[in-house]
Formats: sequence, structure tokens, C-alpha cells
Amino acid sequence: MATLGPSIDQLIQALRCLPGVGPKSAQRMTFHLLERDRSGGEHLAEMLSKALANVKHCQRCRILSEEDICSRCNDSSRREDQLCIVEMPSDVIAIEQATHYQGQYFVLTGHLSPLDGIGPEALGIPDLIARFDQKIVTEVILATNPTVEGQATAHYISEIARSRDIHVTRLAHGIPLGGELEYVDSGTLSHAFAGREKY
Amino acid sequence: MATLGPSIDQLIQALRCLPGVGPKSAQRMTFHLLERDRSGGEHLAEMLSKALANVKHCQRCRILSEEDICSRCNDSSRREDQLCIVEMPSDVIAIEQATHYQGQYFVLTGHLSPLDGIGPEALGIPDLIARFDQKIVTEVILATNPTVEGQATAHYISEIARSRDIHVTRLAHGIPLGGELEYVDSGTLSHAFAGREKY
Repeated sequence: MATLGPSIDQLIQALRCLPGVGPKSAQRMTFHLLERDRSGGEHLAEMLSKALANVKHCQRCRILSEEDICSRCNDSSRREDQLCIVEMPSDVIAIEQATHYQGQYFVLTGHLSPLDGIGPEALGIPDLIARFDQKIVTEVILATNPTVEGQATAHYISEIARSRDIHVTRLAHGIPLGGELEYVDSGTLSHAFAGREKY
Repeated sequence: MATLGPSIDQLIQALRCLPGVGPKSAQRMTFHLLERDRSGGEHLAEMLSKALANVKHCQRCRILSEEDICSRCNDSSRREDQLCIVEMPSDVIAIEQATHYQGQYFVLTGHLSPLDGIGPEALGIPDLIARFDQKIVTEVILATNPTVEGQATAHYISEIARSRDIHVTRLAHGIPLGGELEYVDSGTLSHAFAGREKY
């Protein structure tokens, strides 16, 4: 393998920590930064260090935040009785952009995965139980990913909420808007067929 | 647009300086770095700053290098009479990996593009002329990209080299190995047909 020196090789390696970046993309990014956009590269290094130093998790909803309590949790105009449970911060952004939901969130930062050592503690379930026990939340909206792990996590949380008489809902499953039936996977289609609604 | 605070937004924006990274990828990278791989992020920021500080251009061949003269130019076992001219450092890596070429390189760091204000000076053509005038180089191998701008740049350099009685060659054009004729673009096919070789 022809190389251009340790600093360049190390930068190529370091860029591979980014999701979706393989050896070719990392090399292309490195040459782009060093050859064409050094000021962009300096800005990136600075912003990356700044974000890593400043960004922590909201103590209430566990979303990424620069404050101890994030702006959404601090917003008194939002409803306190609805709690939407998601896996990742990006899910909060997606729901905020797509819906008019005005309740609270709780970010698990993952899903139950015993084989990887990710149990209820890592997902903040004790905090979630403490929140349920405050008796303010009356509806829990499960918005974990529709994967096996996401569904198992949702099931686990639903049991906890139900045992405390909290109403549990989950996002509707079915055929995505704008799709063609032919291309919908058979699991989704069978689910949508069984759960057909009155027209 | 729902946001998570200035540091996160600025990091998302800063990541967009990377080639091929749009708003969605930048957001995904940001969440990945902050949520799952903070040590990778710190390493990336450090390696990026280090590379930007240490990497300059080789004074002889203009490739990215940590030394004033790169290891390839300093390698006395390489032939001095052959000079391969490429647009970008990545082209040198590609040629080194694919061929047994043992001569010198000259990296233009781009191609002639008068509309963008990129003239012969920006491509180091004066240095190239000085090198021709040392009378060591006897063959110039033009390996600019087979684009309109790359070909124009190659033509410009070939005129300079010929006026100094230097033998000028360029990479062979034709049908790529492993391709199917049906999918070869018509320009390449017509060029390959006209330039057919004895079998």
C-alpha cells in the first residue's frame, strides 16, 4: 500500500470512525480537506472538540443537550402527561419535524440487547420507572424502532407502565404512504392486512 | 427545524465540508460521534488538527507530504528521466498501487479552469518548466483525467514539453477491462474502435 506519511494515514484511519465511511471515502475526505478545504477542516476540528466538550445528556429525557435539562423538558407549554419513548435523539428530531406532538420525550439511547451487555440500567429504565412513579404521566407512547430488539424493548417498558395503570400506545404500523403494494415487505403487508381499518 | 442546541448544530454544519456528506449524513455522523463514539471523535479532532498542521506540499512534486521533499522524490532508486503528470495526490496512490512505474511524479493539484481563475501558475506550471529545463526528464507521461479540462491541461503541457524536445506519452484510452461493450459510453467505444490494435 502506497502511503503519504503518518499524519495523512492516521487522519484516513480516524475518519473511518464516522458511520458509512470506508477506506476509499476516508481517503477522498482526507485529500479534500488537505488539498482544497483546510479552513473547513480547521473549523470541523474545532467544532468537534467543542461539541464533545459541551454536549452531555439531558438529566430528564436523556437527549443530547448542552444544558443539564434540555430546552424541551424546560418548556412549560408542553404537556406533562404524555411521554414518548424513543431509541435515539434523531428519533426525537424526526417526530418533532413530522408531528404536532407537544408532550415529553424519553430517549433510551439504544434498545435491550443482552448479548451486547445492554440491559435496563444502560437504557435508563430505573429513571423511567421513577418518572412513572411520580404519577404525572398518564400516556406512554412507544416509538422504538419496528425491529425485533425495538419491539422487545417496547414490550418490556409496556409491562412496567401497565403495572402502574398507565395507558400505553404505540405508533401505528402498516403500509407506508406513497409506496406500492408490490414492494412492501411481506411482514408489513400481512400486518397491515390483519389490522385493516374501516373505510 | 427542531434543533438540539448550538454546539450540535454547528458540528452538523461543519461535517458538511466533507465531500459526499449532506444534511442527513452529517446529522447521523454527529449523533454517532456524540452518542456512541466519543473517543473516536476526540481522536478524529486530534488527527485532523495534527494533519492540518504537519502536512504541506512536497516542494518538488507538489504531492501532500510532511517533509519538504517527499519520500518518493528522495528515493534515489527511482528513475529521474520519467515524469508522470497527474491532477491529484490520489492519482499518484492509484498509479503506485496499480503499476510498476518507478519514475518521478508531478502533481498539478487540479486542472486548467480559466473561468474559476485556475491558470498555469496555480498548477505549478512554472516549476514544471524549470524542471524540464534541467534536461534530466526525457519522457513526460500525461495522466490527467480523461475529462475536457484534463485533456486541455494535458494538451497545454504537451506543447511545452515538445518545444523542449521531450518525448510525450499519455495513458492509453479504450474499453475498460471486465466491462461489457453494451455499457461502454459511445465516446470511449468510438475512440477504441478507431484506435484498434493488431491482435
